Amino acid sequence: MEQAVKEADRIIIGIDPGTNVMGYGILGVIKSKPQLIAMGVLDLTKIGDPYTKLGRIYDRVKMLVEQFCPDEMAIEAPFFGKNVQSMLKLGRAQGVAIAAALSHEVPITEYEPRKIKQAITGNGAASKEQVREMLKRILAIKSENMIPQLDSTDALAAALCHFYESSKPAKSPRASSWKDFIAKNPNRVQKRTDN
Amino acid sequence: MEQAVKEADRIIIGIDPGTNVMGYGILGVIKSKPQLIAMGVLDLTKIGDPYTKLGRIYDRVKMLVEQFCPDEMAIEAPFFGKNVQSMLKLGRAQGVAIAAALSHEVPITEYEPRKIKQAITGNGAASKEQVREMLKRILAIKSENMIPQLDSTDALAAALCHFYESSKPAKSPRASSWKDFIAKNPNRVQKRTDN
Repeated sequence: MEQAVKEADRIIIGIDPGTNVMGYGILGVIKSKPQLIAMGVLDLTKIGDPYTKLGRIYDRVKMLVEQFCPDEMAIEAPFFGKNVQSMLKLGRAQGVAIAAALSHEVPITEYEPRKIKQAITGNGAASKEQVREMLKRILAIKSENMIPQLDSTDALAAALCHFYESSKPAKSPRASSWKDFIAKNPNRVQKRTDN
Repeated sequence: MEQAVKEADRIIIGIDPGTNVMGYGILGVIKSKPQLIAMGVLDLTKIGDPYTKLGRIYDRVKMLVEQFCPDEMAIEAPFFGKNVQSMLKLGRAQGVAIAAALSHEVPITEYEPRKIKQAITGNGAASKEQVREMLKRILAIKSENMIPQLDSTDALAAALCHFYESSKPAKSPRASSWKDFIAKNPNRVQKRTDN
């Protein structure tokens, strides 16, 4: 693992912040190829006090950021939820994770669950298990033990989704109108010679 | 102001975190009396990027905590809102403010807006202006200039509400049943002498 961290040209941390379980996955990009560095979960189900929960999320994300020095962070973030109460709680969990990244100036990008599933499996409605299987194949994870919990695979999937999205070639600048086209391509304009 | 910070037996920071404006108020307790130390707002309306907004909230709360070393933090926190989207945003703003306090081990208590209004004015449905007027009277704030914006008075009101709530005498331990009462007060049990 330490070797992979040293060799990586770029490190991406994926976070799936929840109020009961927080998943995380660390991806190293070595010679343009994504490679698993670490993954795991922070189980908060046994903690009753909401501030203790938030404190644990903050501490763990901060620790991960300090340990792996990621260049970027990808967050799995649903934009809609069941009700206002759960969204407030989720927002707080996201907020403390974001604060931990921002305190180390790690840029953040968020992805909707659907977008992540689409990027990994080609199907925006894929199950968590399908995402996990694809991750195992893409990252050549052999042992079953390497996949501890589905919450951590969601986080790892967010990191991989970010790798794909950020590795896409920038869109070539295209002329947006004939006028632009003519201005940019004067040699492709035939002069009228019939008059 | 510095004198008040030094003299204070206890310092309470009140925060009203919002996605567009964050208000804050610092209260010093000097000889059991609350006194205004500082108040203000962080205007985020001109910042477009949501992470920059969250970063600014985190930085400011952290700065205030480092500057005033508060013993406690009180947050104005509605438990219900208009829609899931706005609650997610609000939760994030609260989350980064909470993270800044937790990173300095400042304990947090949150109060619903209604509870704060009730504590300050005696009316849970009081207007922001009514809360401001009461604050001016209670804290003997003379100049109109000392009340910059209503968002900061909301935050100061949260701090004052926390002062009132935490200054309430602890409930005296009362026996919860006759069995308990007898166990705790054996001398008050008359022995039956008629048999």
